[in-house]
Amino acid sequence: MKTSSPAFVRPAIKDLAGYVPGEQPRDRRYIKLNTNENPYPPSPRVIEAVRLAATDDLRLYPDPVATALRRKAGSVYGFDPDWILAGNGSDDLLSILVRACAEDDDRVVYPVPTYSLYDTLVAIQGAQARHVPFPADFRLPVDDLLAHDGRVTFVCNPNSPSGTLTPVAVIEEMARRTSGLLVVDEAYVDFASESALPLVHRFGNVVVLRTFSKSFSLAGMRIGLAFAQPPVIRELAKVKDSYNLTRLSLVAAEAALDDYAWMETNVERIRATRAHLTARLRELGFEVPPSEANFVLARRRGHDMGAVQQGLKARGVLVRYFATPELRDALRISVGTDAEIETLLENVGPLLK
Amino acid sequence: MKTSSPAFVRPAIKDLAGYVPGEQPRDRRYIKLNTNENPYPPSPRVIEAVRLAATDDLRLYPDPVATALRRKAGSVYGFDPDWILAGNGSDDLLSILVRACAEDDDRVVYPVPTYSLYDTLVAIQGAQARHVPFPADFRLPVDDLLAHDGRVTFVCNPNSPSGTLTPVAVIEEMARRTSGLLVVDEAYVDFASESALPLVHRFGNVVVLRTFSKSFSLAGMRIGLAFAQPPVIRELAKVKDSYNLTRLSLVAAEAALDDYAWMETNVERIRATRAHLTARLRELGFEVPPSEANFVLARRRGHDMGAVQQGLKARGVLVRYFATPELRDALRISVGTDAEIETLLENVGPLLK
Repeated sequence: MKTSSPAFVRPAIKDLAGYVPGEQPRDRRYIKLNTNENPYPPSPRVIEAVRLAATDDLRLYPDPVATALRRKAGSVYGFDPDWILAGNGSDDLLSILVRACAEDDDRVVYPVPTYSLYDTLVAIQGAQARHVPFPADFRLPVDDLLAHDGRVTFVCNPNSPSGTLTPVAVIEEMARRTSGLLVVDEAYVDFASESALPLVHRFGNVVVLRTFSKSFSLAGMRIGLAFAQPPVIRELAKVKDSYNLTRLSLVAAEAALDDYAWMETNVERIRATRAHLTARLRELGFEVPPSEANFVLARRRGHDMGAVQQGLKARGVLVRYFATPELRDALRISVGTDAEIETLLENVGPLLK
Repeated sequence: MKTSSPAFVRPAIKDLAGYVPGEQPRDRRYIKLNTNENPYPPSPRVIEAVRLAATDDLRLYPDPVATALRRKAGSVYGFDPDWILAGNGSDDLLSILVRACAEDDDRVVYPVPTYSLYDTLVAIQGAQARHVPFPADFRLPVDDLLAHDGRVTFVCNPNSPSGTLTPVAVIEEMARRTSGLLVVDEAYVDFASESALPLVHRFGNVVVLRTFSKSFSLAGMRIGLAFAQPPVIRELAKVKDSYNLTRLSLVAAEAALDDYAWMETNVERIRATRAHLTARLRELGFEVPPSEANFVLARRRGHDMGAVQQGLKARGVLVRYFATPELRDALRISVGTDAEIETLLENVGPLLK
């Protein structure tokens, strides 16, 4: 492959494997527990708002600065709109952050295993990734992270794929002790017990990222929000594409915030199912770190779980397997409906040796 | 501003003014001839398809590789799907191209004036922009462009804001004589007499970009396509966000291609109005280069047109004014409906001194 790469492509890109997203089968018979989608639908008010907005006005550009969405999100989360930037999913915001802050010898630091897109984004940017391994209990290795003196530090919290939550007090300690930017990627935080969002008011070097893909059941609409102090938001805004969210994504996000209770109800159901799933997996002999996300990491130490993932797929259940030395003895299982999780549990037992 | 920029932001970003998109007023009473939107709506089949797709499935991620869209676009334009990459608008694709190919001392070359986003993207990437002035007749300055030995060369064709078209034979000469990447940004090509798309079959260093924002009346849905040989597409794909198009954008794009005749009918109407607008503006004393786009550049040499733009705005008509030395004696006017253009023409005459 490498030899056929055109000469005008940067070496860093040629060397890159590229981020591999979880499988998105077109065959709808699968029970999909592999990409942390919400098993429950978005609010009917969202569907209705999107349908109503699907008019001839699609010929017009979207609001480039997402005025109405930022105003609404500001009132829901307690910020002025100029503390908020809207992204085409939080992936867009992560890309903007790396491009805005890191170059050449700048270090981008994060505990691993975590969201592997960070690796891809740092490599594309040609900056320096510094991995700090999580200990077995997934406690945040604060001193080791700080020792790398990162221009940017990522903390995915709750972390993927472990599901574990670092307490806000520890995030605050990180913010106080680093002069670089601390990005708290809270994609899963609505399923957790606390958020670092209040830190944004007090620390000029903290960015908190949210997404509508998980708790709001809108992965298909690509909506993310970044919260930070206005001097940071102003710089990030320069890097974003002018029209990064579609007209319908903006409408969907506003309607989702208008029916916040719908999201909370779904979150409650997922939390209850998560507790049941965790208990049952532990009974089956899995190590399962306490999850505050909408998935769990189920580990059988020393056993490669590739065959179990394949066996589940053959039985119509997709879960996520990571073919890396640290993770190949684990599966990441999204929390589906109770019925979906029952099917998973019925099928996984017989596959274990 | 600069002094308040956080220390963790890259100097190149702090120095950046950022791309300023054309005004998107929330007040609907304006006649909007400032951002080259299509005055005619998208196909009713697009609206219908989007409404039908606005279901509970919005909870699921989009197809990360836009399989169905690429297959359909391939059959419409005569390419295998692996010659195509889908973008969140062609702006997304432009950003991907710069990030994939240019770094540090690499030169990115283009004739000016042109789409000013190229400047922004090159500056964000920290590469070297090389501007080659168009001559007064907007003929492509081939030798001067080639003399810069660009890693990447952009040719916006038809060019914005001039509306002028470089013949494909000249584009082909560029492709043959450069070892770098030649990006032909064909955002407006459906309004023109020929396209460089066939060159992609013969040149491994040509990328042709298309957008659904103009001819297909879908600016609000953010859809772009890149066409290039598979070794190039493979590298670009590594740089794109995994899920860069929403589920509904994919559906809209597919439906738009299914009703290609709808787009062609609107294009014919716009071409007819463009001919009328050009003739009338020339009668009013404007220089108007022959446009093959859905806008015209109307110039009164030596007269700053800022006051005329403001006067038109006060009368409810938005047109585009660029406050640069080369362009401040010109207005870029999108081709609206016949009625909109009549209103423009009635109002612009009295504003001229």
